[in-house]
Amino acid sequence: MTAVLSQDVVHMQQALQLAAKGQQTTRPNPNVGCVIVSAAGEVVGEGWHARAGEPHAEVHALRMAGERAQGGTAYVTLEPCSHYGRTPPCAEALVEAGVARVVVAMEDPFHQVAGRGIQRLQQAGIEVVVGVEEAAAHALNKGFIHHCQTGLPLVQVKLAASIDGATALATGESQWITGPEARRDVHEARACAGAILTGADTVLYDNPQLNVRLESLPEGFQQPVRIVIDSLGRVPLDATIFADGTPVYLVRTRALGMDYPEHVHELIVPDRHGKVDLAAMLAAVGKMNIHTLWCEAGHQLAGALIEQQLAQELWLYIGPKLMGQGAQPVLALPQYKAMRDVPCFTLSSAEPIGNDVKLIYLL
Amino acid sequence: MTAVLSQDVVHMQQALQLAAKGQQTTRPNPNVGCVIVSAAGEVVGEGWHARAGEPHAEVHALRMAGERAQGGTAYVTLEPCSHYGRTPPCAEALVEAGVARVVVAMEDPFHQVAGRGIQRLQQAGIEVVVGVEEAAAHALNKGFIHHCQTGLPLVQVKLAASIDGATALATGESQWITGPEARRDVHEARACAGAILTGADTVLYDNPQLNVRLESLPEGFQQPVRIVIDSLGRVPLDATIFADGTPVYLVRTRALGMDYPEHVHELIVPDRHGKVDLAAMLAAVGKMNIHTLWCEAGHQLAGALIEQQLAQELWLYIGPKLMGQGAQPVLALPQYKAMRDVPCFTLSSAEPIGNDVKLIYLL
Repeated sequence: MTAVLSQDVVHMQQALQLAAKGQQTTRPNPNVGCVIVSAAGEVVGEGWHARAGEPHAEVHALRMAGERAQGGTAYVTLEPCSHYGRTPPCAEALVEAGVARVVVAMEDPFHQVAGRGIQRLQQAGIEVVVGVEEAAAHALNKGFIHHCQTGLPLVQVKLAASIDGATALATGESQWITGPEARRDVHEARACAGAILTGADTVLYDNPQLNVRLESLPEGFQQPVRIVIDSLGRVPLDATIFADGTPVYLVRTRALGMDYPEHVHELIVPDRHGKVDLAAMLAAVGKMNIHTLWCEAGHQLAGALIEQQLAQELWLYIGPKLMGQGAQPVLALPQYKAMRDVPCFTLSSAEPIGNDVKLIYLL
Repeated sequence: MTAVLSQDVVHMQQALQLAAKGQQTTRPNPNVGCVIVSAAGEVVGEGWHARAGEPHAEVHALRMAGERAQGGTAYVTLEPCSHYGRTPPCAEALVEAGVARVVVAMEDPFHQVAGRGIQRLQQAGIEVVVGVEEAAAHALNKGFIHHCQTGLPLVQVKLAASIDGATALATGESQWITGPEARRDVHEARACAGAILTGADTVLYDNPQLNVRLESLPEGFQQPVRIVIDSLGRVPLDATIFADGTPVYLVRTRALGMDYPEHVHELIVPDRHGKVDLAAMLAAVGKMNIHTLWCEAGHQLAGALIEQQLAQELWLYIGPKLMGQGAQPVLALPQYKAMRDVPCFTLSSAEPIGNDVKLIYLL
């Protein structure tokens, strides 16, 4: 009835590759890819979701397939939607196209879908298989899924450190620990995030742009918004972070009532021991419909996010250098009394990038 | 005349795989593998050097090939020897077997060979090709080659650190930062070394065995000797390191005239600023015909070897843990004033091992 066929994995992997094309542009929508295979076994349609408000992957693929979809199989990386959002429901479009079988990598965790798309297909007599390449489909939309499940953004803490675990010399000098390939990789990662988080200290000391700078950006690309923890109103208005007109949110425990340009906002959150309550800040960011929060901050903020168990991923770029005595530690952490007390993570991947290495840990 | 043929790379890779079987047993001899391919293109002989004093790779492969070697090609990962050592010259054996062509991955840097093997083959009218898979052949015998070229052992500094670059908690506790898979990998690496180097502090605080403990060890395996820097005679005779009867060398600037068992020796070297002169110690180890020195030491000795540019490789195992404030740094190093002054290495490989990652840097 709902058996997985040998070709299902191959076609789903194709659909996943299509879905990934939207990684830097679909937010706040998930990435979805679709492959239509005719009754004769030929790939007759391919599509992916490119930008929120534009057609979904299934619609693109069905348009390409035309009548050849009839009696065929649709491979979709996420359950087809069942609700009228900015576009009509895709489950309906698949029924109308007359496909005989739909293979879905994973259920849509979004509360307006959540199984209803699959139900609609089954009601129309279509054979539905769920769970082919599910782990890869999950990884592709990890921010979206995390936000659906928790209302919070997935927090990715990025660190760049030397072999001896330092981010700057005793003198404060830090440029550059990693090489150009790793720095480029950081821009690719930033491009997939809804927002970039940093602290006032980083803005004051480094005066970064904190935007995405790549030779080529996909059509319709929007820069991630910037979120700066700035309780004391120390970030000056001539900081580079304000220069390109992308929204900036200054996080504080009370409004400072300063005269900001239109793209600069205050984000007021409760305090915790006299500081911004980071958990409350994340809840507020979640309410802004931001699914992935990329954090590039100093050792205090990065350390606090990890120590308070508010981050889900640690991206550690290690440059092949030794920073020596008195260098600045990568994270501000408490002193642990015993090995059984130390935070312990799961290594997700280790990848050489130029002369550096990128380690991703799941926290 | 000496063109590389398409099958040469394939057969040389086979020969390299054979050579690697001797990695833990041939010292002080190099690892060598040999494949004999008949005139008809069939693999008719395979051999590798297993232990010093036993036949070389070529002899094993020629024995297996018998008369089928005549007119064929021999693939050898290192130039066939030309001198009478503990076994007769392999170049002579290849000539006698009547091979028409010999493909060599690299010249033997050993002063008694150094091109004479190739010369002997050519004089006999054999076509010789040199340099096929040379980089891999070099990597296989890097310690042997380094010793031939410098008279010194190749020094590999092994470190195990947390994500935040620490080797122990502020309390001194350190077991375990890395997991069982990484610790097993360390034993595999130890098994390839001629000697293991450590300091008196490590012996006093950790009381390690510093030997190779693996479920299966190759036939004829000999434990690496241990070299302990112990200027002040602080290592007690009941230390575990003396227990298994493998030779231990206690490095000092003058003999302390203590009453040691037969397998324990004093290695007297000059002093440098009141400490053991590490460069002189390495020269002495080189004279002992030890080609690869695996260093598992505390942050002082490891830091000194790197800072004095006496080490060639840094093996860094990173466990997925955070050791927090006050933790012990992975290396004792001076304070660097500017980024242009910091040591910068070349990343050679990055490999996940269980939940840890192994990074190898060339210094």
